[in-house]
Amino acid sequence: MTDPQDAIDAATDDRADRDERIQAHAAGDVQDGIPFVGAGPGDPGLLTVTGRELVEDADLVVHAGSLVNSELLDAYCADAEQVSSIGKDLEELVPLMRDAYEDGRDVVRLHSGDPAIYGAALEQMDALEHEGVPTYIVPGVTSAFAASATLRTQLTLNGVANHVAFTRPQGKTLDAEDDHISEFVEMGDVTTCLYLGTHAVAETMDRLLDDGHDPDTPVAVVYHASWPDEDVIEGTIETIGDRVEAAGYRASALVVIGDAARKAGYERSYLYDGWANRDGSESEADD
Amino acid sequence: MTDPQDAIDAATDDRADRDERIQAHAAGDVQDGIPFVGAGPGDPGLLTVTGRELVEDADLVVHAGSLVNSELLDAYCADAEQVSSIGKDLEELVPLMRDAYEDGRDVVRLHSGDPAIYGAALEQMDALEHEGVPTYIVPGVTSAFAASATLRTQLTLNGVANHVAFTRPQGKTLDAEDDHISEFVEMGDVTTCLYLGTHAVAETMDRLLDDGHDPDTPVAVVYHASWPDEDVIEGTIETIGDRVEAAGYRASALVVIGDAARKAGYERSYLYDGWANRDGSESEADD
Repeated sequence: MTDPQDAIDAATDDRADRDERIQAHAAGDVQDGIPFVGAGPGDPGLLTVTGRELVEDADLVVHAGSLVNSELLDAYCADAEQVSSIGKDLEELVPLMRDAYEDGRDVVRLHSGDPAIYGAALEQMDALEHEGVPTYIVPGVTSAFAASATLRTQLTLNGVANHVAFTRPQGKTLDAEDDHISEFVEMGDVTTCLYLGTHAVAETMDRLLDDGHDPDTPVAVVYHASWPDEDVIEGTIETIGDRVEAAGYRASALVVIGDAARKAGYERSYLYDGWANRDGSESEADD
Repeated sequence: MTDPQDAIDAATDDRADRDERIQAHAAGDVQDGIPFVGAGPGDPGLLTVTGRELVEDADLVVHAGSLVNSELLDAYCADAEQVSSIGKDLEELVPLMRDAYEDGRDVVRLHSGDPAIYGAALEQMDALEHEGVPTYIVPGVTSAFAASATLRTQLTLNGVANHVAFTRPQGKTLDAEDDHISEFVEMGDVTTCLYLGTHAVAETMDRLLDDGHDPDTPVAVVYHASWPDEDVIEGTIETIGDRVEAAGYRASALVVIGDAARKAGYERSYLYDGWANRDGSESEADD
C-alpha cells in the first residue's frame, strides 16, 4: 500500500504530460473549438440538448452522410452549410474544417451514435489539433440503447445478463484472432451487441454454431433503430441468419445476442409473478 | 439453408407471441403510458431532446435521487411534483406511479444514464404493465460515454481497442464466478468499463494483478462524469487503487481499463505522425 500522498504526487506528476483540458472541463461543457457531436441513433429527438444547440448554431455541419438521419439535419440545421464526410479522406476533411474554423465560422462535426463507439472521430480530432484547431467530444446515444428501447428490454438483467459487450465481427478490418464474439457468448451472461456486422450475420452465426453454442440462444436484429423505417427481426443463433438475408439488410442494423434480446414477451409472465417481492432500490444506479 | 419464405413465416409465427408495440413503435417515439427516460450522465445538456420535452411536460417525476443531477430537475421540471425512488420498493413505487397515471397526470420515470445499463427499469415496467399501465423506454447517454468524452478518447480504437465491455465487479449482488473483468482484460483489445465498482477499485485491481495482468495497463477513473464536480484520476492497474482511495471516492465513478483510457496525451505524438495517410471513411459508422 503506497502512502496516499505519494499516490497523489505520482498522479500529479503523470498529469504534467496530459492534456490540461481533461481536468479543466467536464463532459457536456461547451468548449473552444470544433465539437465532435454524437448525433444519436437517428431520431432527431434522441440528439442531446447540447448537441442540438450546437448544431442549430452551426454555420458548417460536417456529417456522416446517410449514417445520420436527414430528418435531424432538416430539423436543426437546414440553413447551415452541410457537407457529407462519406468518401472524403482526412486530407480533404481536415483542411475543410480547419479553414472554416479559422474564418470564424461555427463548425460542428456530427457523427452517428456516440463518437466513442466505432466512431473514428479521434484521428480527425488529432489531425485538427495538429493544425492548431481545438476539438472536443459531445457524447450521444448509441444505437444499441435505441435497439434495447425498441425491444422493450435492458441490455443488463440481473442474473441473466450481468455484462454487455459492444463488438464487431472479423472481416477486412478485424483479424479472425481479434474476433471475440464466441468468447463473449460463451460467458453465458453477456449481452453481445454487434456493430458493423449486418452484412455478416449469417456467417457469424455459423461460426457460433461451429463453436458449439446453443442454437436456441435468442438473437434480435434491429435495423435503423429509431428511424422511421426501423425494423425488428427476431430469432435465434440458428434462425436469424436466414431471416436477415430474407429481409435483405446488409448494413445499419444492430445485432443483440443473448437472453436480454428476448426479455420482453416470452419471459414476461414469469416476471409478473411475485414482482412485489423484488426490491428495485439496489441496482438502479447507472453508477 | 431454409427457404426464405419459410424463414419469414417462422418469424411471423414467433411474433404472434410478442409485444405488438415492438413492431409498431420505433425507439424515440412518444407512446402511450409512462416513459422510462434515461437522464444521461448528469449534465442537463446531455439529456435527449425528447427526454427533456417529456420531463418538462410532466406533472410527476419519479427520479433516481442523488443519482440524477438536481440541476437537471431544477432546469426542466422545477414545477412538477418530484419523488425520489431511493429507499422505496416496488410496492410503494408502482402504486404511486399507477395512481398518478390513472388520475390523468403526466408521469415520467427518470433513471440515470441509459435505462438499459444496470438500470432496473424493467421490473418496474413489468409491474406497471401488470397493473394495466403501459410503459416505454426513452434511451439516454450512459456515463461511460461521458467519461470517454472527458478523457478525449474513444472506447474503441482501431487495432488497440476493438471491443468494449460494460461490466461490474463481484460482490453482494454478483457471484465471483460471474465476474468476467479478468477475462475481458485478458483479451487485450477490449476497453473494460466498470460500473457500480467505485468502492471496489483497489480489490478489483489486486485480483487483476493476481491473475498476472500487466501492472502498467492504463486505468482512468472518472468521478461524476459531466457533473460540476467531475474529477479524473489516472493511473494503471498497479497504481489506481491507492489513488482512488486517497481521493476518497466510494461511489459514482466509472472505471475505464485498457489502452483507450490513455489514448489522448501520451500517445498523441504518435498519432500525429502520418495522419494524412489514414483514411477516415471506413469505420466512421456507428453502424
